[in-house]
Amino acid sequence: MDLNAIREHLLDIGGVGRGEDGAVNRLLFTQEYDRAAEKLMEYMHQSGLVVRRDSVGNLHGVLPATESGTGTLYLGSHLDTVRDGGLYDGALGIIAGVECVRRFAREQPQRAFDLHVLATNGEEGNDLGGTFGSRCMMGLVDLDQPGYLDIAARFGLSREDMENARLDTSDALGYLELHIEQGKTLDEAGEDLGVVTGIVGLRRWQISVLGEANHAGTTMMEFRHDAMVAASKLIVRIDTMAREYGHDLVATVGKFELFPNSAPVVPGRAEMVLEVRSRDDARMTAFFERVKAAAAEIPEVEFRFAPIVAKAPVQCDERLIAALERACRSSGLRWREMASGATHDGNAFAMKMPIGMLFVPSRGGISHNKKEFTTWEQIGSGVETLYQALLELNRQYMEGV
Amino acid sequence: MDLNAIREHLLDIGGVGRGEDGAVNRLLFTQEYDRAAEKLMEYMHQSGLVVRRDSVGNLHGVLPATESGTGTLYLGSHLDTVRDGGLYDGALGIIAGVECVRRFAREQPQRAFDLHVLATNGEEGNDLGGTFGSRCMMGLVDLDQPGYLDIAARFGLSREDMENARLDTSDALGYLELHIEQGKTLDEAGEDLGVVTGIVGLRRWQISVLGEANHAGTTMMEFRHDAMVAASKLIVRIDTMAREYGHDLVATVGKFELFPNSAPVVPGRAEMVLEVRSRDDARMTAFFERVKAAAAEIPEVEFRFAPIVAKAPVQCDERLIAALERACRSSGLRWREMASGATHDGNAFAMKMPIGMLFVPSRGGISHNKKEFTTWEQIGSGVETLYQALLELNRQYMEGV
Repeated sequence: MDLNAIREHLLDIGGVGRGEDGAVNRLLFTQEYDRAAEKLMEYMHQSGLVVRRDSVGNLHGVLPATESGTGTLYLGSHLDTVRDGGLYDGALGIIAGVECVRRFAREQPQRAFDLHVLATNGEEGNDLGGTFGSRCMMGLVDLDQPGYLDIAARFGLSREDMENARLDTSDALGYLELHIEQGKTLDEAGEDLGVVTGIVGLRRWQISVLGEANHAGTTMMEFRHDAMVAASKLIVRIDTMAREYGHDLVATVGKFELFPNSAPVVPGRAEMVLEVRSRDDARMTAFFERVKAAAAEIPEVEFRFAPIVAKAPVQCDERLIAALERACRSSGLRWREMASGATHDGNAFAMKMPIGMLFVPSRGGISHNKKEFTTWEQIGSGVETLYQALLELNRQYMEGV
Repeated sequence: MDLNAIREHLLDIGGVGRGEDGAVNRLLFTQEYDRAAEKLMEYMHQSGLVVRRDSVGNLHGVLPATESGTGTLYLGSHLDTVRDGGLYDGALGIIAGVECVRRFAREQPQRAFDLHVLATNGEEGNDLGGTFGSRCMMGLVDLDQPGYLDIAARFGLSREDMENARLDTSDALGYLELHIEQGKTLDEAGEDLGVVTGIVGLRRWQISVLGEANHAGTTMMEFRHDAMVAASKLIVRIDTMAREYGHDLVATVGKFELFPNSAPVVPGRAEMVLEVRSRDDARMTAFFERVKAAAAEIPEVEFRFAPIVAKAPVQCDERLIAALERACRSSGLRWREMASGATHDGNAFAMKMPIGMLFVPSRGGISHNKKEFTTWEQIGSGVETLYQALLELNRQYMEGV
């Protein structure tokens, strides 16, 4: 790959919104997003793509097939960042897509499919919901949910804008994305590439711990109904149980509030959110049952559970996985199959087409942070492997496999 | 005792500030406090006491000795309540004091000491600090601490007001207070009276749990530095260890905050307050060392400890304890020696004179709540026992013991 070009454009476009402290702020529908979009469109144009910006800010760059009738293969990632994010999350997959297509145009006179690079808007969590741009393209946004159009209006969007962004996916062959891992699995193992087999599903439950507030001086230990202690016991159990699943499940209590939250008062109530992620829906269900059973053994308080979020896991496509793995094998690099613990645009695209993802390492597992880092060598390996997978798919489609 | 009079005055004076929901609001320097103060002064006056209100709102009612030179024995409790408090906390001890003195005046022609009933202001936690009125009387308020006079000014108080409330304690024989237990020890044991041997000291430490915030989907369990899990482990250990001490120590994490407190983020930091109470200072020190040792065994995070409050335990006076216990024994009622887990005006008075306290049961251990409840029979037993202790002390002082 042309690592110089990758570096130049990743620093240039991915660097839009980077402040003096190194953190990148390129949130959806901001001036920074627009500035990056203009640069990207220019770069796509110069790379020989047919470029457009759709009505919700997604960018499209298309290299047409030389043969007709097979369909469209999508590549890309998101152009927006979280608040105070890093250089690589999102931007890398876009630059990788454009670079692959540019090289493809140069080196492959016969192209079985349209190559369609997407730079999506609002993939990161935001008031319109994460994976906003890709959900608009896939027609997955519920425009009739109460208040949604009011929120959209704050971003200057009308119902028509969101409807018009819909993409015709009837000829879609699939979506491939290169992304940083955002975890430390590859980094810790000293591996270069991760072929994603699926994106984990996610469940969240509100857990209320109902004890009894009381005087922290006069209430002897055995008379207490301490919501903090009971919640702590459950959290320790959750952590212990989750570790039994290796990398097949994670469980987190990331949100916690205590009531009345006063030093001289035995806590009467705790409210917490338990989040469980796994590629296996049944495993999450079974885990939650274990959590409830563990809670039932904790004395002195009452636990109440209410589901608040349930996102189904997404499976990656066998054909796309196979193409990526063939490319990994021939690269001679160290790689593994793995699940993505984070949500991606692929969650939306998978509703309408096969998806595949390739991960490169995140140093220390850090992302959504200015300290996000992947070496240029690792990036080069990732883009090259993505390109080789494209070649393999082109070969297959040219041969009518 | 004249249980009818006790009931009448407790409901009348203790009921000032009682709302439709049954909760009593008689906070320091409110109209409700003033209204109760007027009623109380009238009741003291009609009971034959020489009455005055001092410059910080404490009320004084004195029955002079018939013999000269022995000194002054103080009785009483606080007239203010917490926000949404109950009928008994504070008011009971005042009414008990007045009733005892009224009966004493009637039945004891020879009185070895002045009997001085106090109704204190601002005993409950407030912006001037709890036990405010009694600390003013004992000269224990640091008027030079930054900003204190500004806070006092908001209550209409000048430096002179607080200085002028100082009481001459040179002839003080002691302070005796009847109070509800505020815990459930007596209620659970089916006992009527608790002779207080001391008021527990109190230590508070800020505990910071420093982990590492990370993505709750991509960070596998073994790579986490989860501040919530680590804090939970310590809290469970604290609870387990505290229970080893029986009724000799309580430990509470009543205040807890998590950062960044977001469901999809592995918690990076927790801040909590550990409060330990015991009658034995050395026991609190040793317990805290055990907590630190337990924390040192918890992996993946760093714990930091900072002391924020240290109040020394207060010992009750042997002579006053003996007089109360003699009265308990002759009553035929069930009683025990016990520590007070709560702070009282006695904490301040003990700096200048011997103190003694007698507890009556709190149903269910509930206090600082409209559900606070003690039966009239239990109240009658408490006041009678207090009176018998006064008789015993009078006998001793008359005999020059």
